[in-house]
Amino acid sequence: MILIDAGVMFPNGSLRGLGLDLIVPDITFLKENRKHLHCILLTHGHEDHIGGLPFLVNEVPVPIYGSPLALGLVRNRLSERNLHHAVSLNPIKPRQELQFGVFQVEPLHMTHSMPDSFSFAFRTPAGVVIWSGDFKFDQSPIDGRLSDMGRLAEYGDEGVLLLCSDSTNAAMAGLTPSEHSIREPLRAIFRKAEGRVFVSCFASSIHRMQVVMDLAREFGRQVIALGRSMVTNLELAQNLGYLKVPPEVLQPFSEHHRLAPEETVFLATGSQGEPRSAMNRLAYDQYRRIMIRDGDTVILSTRIIPGNERSVTGMINHFYRRGAFVYDSRTSLVHSSGHGFQADLKILLNLTRPRYFVPTHGEYRQLAKHAGLAADQGLTADRVQILESGQVLEVSEDRIHLKGEVPVGYRYIDAGNREEIGIDVIRERRCMAQHGIVLLCFPSVRPSKQEAAPPEVILRGVLSGETAAQLEADLQRQALLATADLSDSERRDEKLCAERVGRHLKRFLKKTIGKRPLIVPVFQKM
Amino acid sequence: MILIDAGVMFPNGSLRGLGLDLIVPDITFLKENRKHLHCILLTHGHEDHIGGLPFLVNEVPVPIYGSPLALGLVRNRLSERNLHHAVSLNPIKPRQELQFGVFQVEPLHMTHSMPDSFSFAFRTPAGVVIWSGDFKFDQSPIDGRLSDMGRLAEYGDEGVLLLCSDSTNAAMAGLTPSEHSIREPLRAIFRKAEGRVFVSCFASSIHRMQVVMDLAREFGRQVIALGRSMVTNLELAQNLGYLKVPPEVLQPFSEHHRLAPEETVFLATGSQGEPRSAMNRLAYDQYRRIMIRDGDTVILSTRIIPGNERSVTGMINHFYRRGAFVYDSRTSLVHSSGHGFQADLKILLNLTRPRYFVPTHGEYRQLAKHAGLAADQGLTADRVQILESGQVLEVSEDRIHLKGEVPVGYRYIDAGNREEIGIDVIRERRCMAQHGIVLLCFPSVRPSKQEAAPPEVILRGVLSGETAAQLEADLQRQALLATADLSDSERRDEKLCAERVGRHLKRFLKKTIGKRPLIVPVFQKM
Repeated sequence: MILIDAGVMFPNGSLRGLGLDLIVPDITFLKENRKHLHCILLTHGHEDHIGGLPFLVNEVPVPIYGSPLALGLVRNRLSERNLHHAVSLNPIKPRQELQFGVFQVEPLHMTHSMPDSFSFAFRTPAGVVIWSGDFKFDQSPIDGRLSDMGRLAEYGDEGVLLLCSDSTNAAMAGLTPSEHSIREPLRAIFRKAEGRVFVSCFASSIHRMQVVMDLAREFGRQVIALGRSMVTNLELAQNLGYLKVPPEVLQPFSEHHRLAPEETVFLATGSQGEPRSAMNRLAYDQYRRIMIRDGDTVILSTRIIPGNERSVTGMINHFYRRGAFVYDSRTSLVHSSGHGFQADLKILLNLTRPRYFVPTHGEYRQLAKHAGLAADQGLTADRVQILESGQVLEVSEDRIHLKGEVPVGYRYIDAGNREEIGIDVIRERRCMAQHGIVLLCFPSVRPSKQEAAPPEVILRGVLSGETAAQLEADLQRQALLATADLSDSERRDEKLCAERVGRHLKRFLKKTIGKRPLIVPVFQKM
Repeated sequence: MILIDAGVMFPNGSLRGLGLDLIVPDITFLKENRKHLHCILLTHGHEDHIGGLPFLVNEVPVPIYGSPLALGLVRNRLSERNLHHAVSLNPIKPRQELQFGVFQVEPLHMTHSMPDSFSFAFRTPAGVVIWSGDFKFDQSPIDGRLSDMGRLAEYGDEGVLLLCSDSTNAAMAGLTPSEHSIREPLRAIFRKAEGRVFVSCFASSIHRMQVVMDLAREFGRQVIALGRSMVTNLELAQNLGYLKVPPEVLQPFSEHHRLAPEETVFLATGSQGEPRSAMNRLAYDQYRRIMIRDGDTVILSTRIIPGNERSVTGMINHFYRRGAFVYDSRTSLVHSSGHGFQADLKILLNLTRPRYFVPTHGEYRQLAKHAGLAADQGLTADRVQILESGQVLEVSEDRIHLKGEVPVGYRYIDAGNREEIGIDVIRERRCMAQHGIVLLCFPSVRPSKQEAAPPEVILRGVLSGETAAQLEADLQRQALLATADLSDSERRDEKLCAERVGRHLKRFLKKTIGKRPLIVPVFQKM
């Protein structure tokens, strides 16, 4: 077995606002099959491909292989948790020959929004399998290094059994614009800018940073990085030679007050409006002592990740309030995607001409669109399989079919201590978020039926003011009512009482206020 | 005083997932100035313009004026709360002469995504003020009724003191596509469809419903409405003559099993993926007994409201899973906006040639863009004013300037009983959603220092499993520690104890698990 990538999900949609940092995969299957696992191969260094490693390496400590850049990013992530000695990190190069058990593996260079991205060709006893990784066919990459179309075509000539390919942009017609295509629009903005320029992009967008450095030099500006990951990654990319910084262009933060507005470019994290990021704090005048002001220029050089629209838009409103000119990917050509559009995807299908095809890396709607593209290229339905997480696919020369499932699931990493919390905790949080909580604190001495005293009732997040006081009184009465027909000995059975009270109040609350708060009876110990 | 519209906001962004139904405006200022208020004028019947009326009419019962359609929708909304007798609803017509105190008011017909939308021209002692309402200049409206460009131009000739105009699409270049423009794309989809067709649009999109009815007839299909508001509004629009339903085309729900797939169109609510809507329940196989299946066609004929991307996308994924063809506004031309793009906005500026201009109805970034458009048309900065909620603008012949503020704010309507809840409740919910709650239940008899017993500690939404048990024990110890230096009499002061324990545990929890849960000490009464 070989594991390709180990990513994370971010708490979006219904998991937003529940105090989570990350969602990482359940690795039960990997732990159980530890002895079969040769290694982890990394296609590239984006968070959704490496962010899960800190939650994996202790329990599945197999060697990790990837490009120097990907490994550099992994090392930083592991160091944060003192895990950098837990596993071996092995740099690999494009076209390097690798052998793991029966698998002969060749990494192939692909263009993407980050340098040194790979697809992998696996020569197996059953045939050749190609895993595309994240890619687009950029014909004018910033670092001049093209996708290895030649070798992909050679595999195609030889015969590819299975292609698994990136589906992120399967709904987008045409060819992805080159990373180069944003240079002119950015140049035009730099040319017009009279005040300071703030550019925000992902801290992993090394190509984008290169473009900004080049433009800074061209317009006599100096660049100051804002945000921890931006500073760290700039240093890493520069040390590894992925980023060519013109002399004197990159300056430490302490130099910013020395620079005139027209000499300054800030390169900042937080293009998605993350609450504690540099860009978001700038929008709300809370980043060190830097204030966005009249005549400044703000460029958000990323796409808005679905689910982040409100936070990004809120940030943009504030930039406008402070008098800045704002450019984002919805209104200007200041971003190009790293994922292939339909024409890119068809090119890969045509180069490799696989017998079987599995669309990967996308939501179901994108996988379905990609399957549709493959159908247009003549891959009949019996040769294409859409997989849901956990489904096992068996591929042989004459057929492709589903073969059972392995356990998969989510592990929730809390935003506080960054440790795992259970789904029960998430459910409690969600329930309290929507309905609040009702506490019933029963006296330590449970009196007999005749002398029954009502519990203390505490509401949080349910109702406010007078209606809350009224409800508390009602709930005290209802709690007594719920146990009215219990005998004195039954009254001493805390579990029975709790169950009775809980069931009764749940119904009462649903009927009277239409809510289902968490109901917590507490029995005071003596 | 005249009030224009009374809308609602939906709980998006940071207010999502907190059990809210709506957010309505604080009406303190209106209540205090009740005696100056002549009436409420409605531009049209969309929720963000009329949805606040049920939370207003009891306390500010002034006459309401609007088109028959807007008033029909208002009547339905008020009836839900038995408020339809609380105020008088007065139908008005385009170009009708109205007089309220010193204000002479003329409603002008405007094209929008809903029939019978108005702008208002106010002839005041200070000059003419034009309030655009929501509009686009649709040159081929579905109902054939054009915007009253002629009268707008007449006001322009006469001299307009102030224009307040819709800014929703101020960032969109060009002219808004006509509502007519979606007919051909929809026709092509209908032509291709072999199974059932599901169309989802807003229940207020009467024009859109008309197009669907016409296409149903053309392709020998019959229409069945799904979702309460769709059924209600279809009936209303038909009764008032806004919707021309071809004979036999509209069928009651009970008829759906009689129709063959190729004879069926379902017209459903829920284009935004609202959890309990028809469309969302269809996606998850939970709507009555209707299952989306292979060969069905799903058309989401709306734009996705920012903040709803995840829920809409989740729904679309499920439609693909069930084998449906899916069309939405991101991939097909199945929707056109009801709000003017830049060219529409410039046309209104040019027709009215106002002395002063206030961009209205939009986020700050859109207001700023609209102000920029006005600048392009020659309106210098001293003639344009962007307003924040609550700011008062004074306009006279020779100047426009801010003149103080009036109280504004939000009132939160709970999703349970649909009554107002306080901001304190929202804060508790948000805190518990992110951090959980810690309960400390102190014994009813507070012993002396020597015999101090620890409180019961209950955690909800904080941690789970063994770490939670450990934390409970730690918190018991810390609670004792927090009050260790209190004398026996101080110990009987509940407020003092609560404050001490709360402060101590807050610090402890922040340090150990990085969270700030709600801390609730409870003192059991005797």
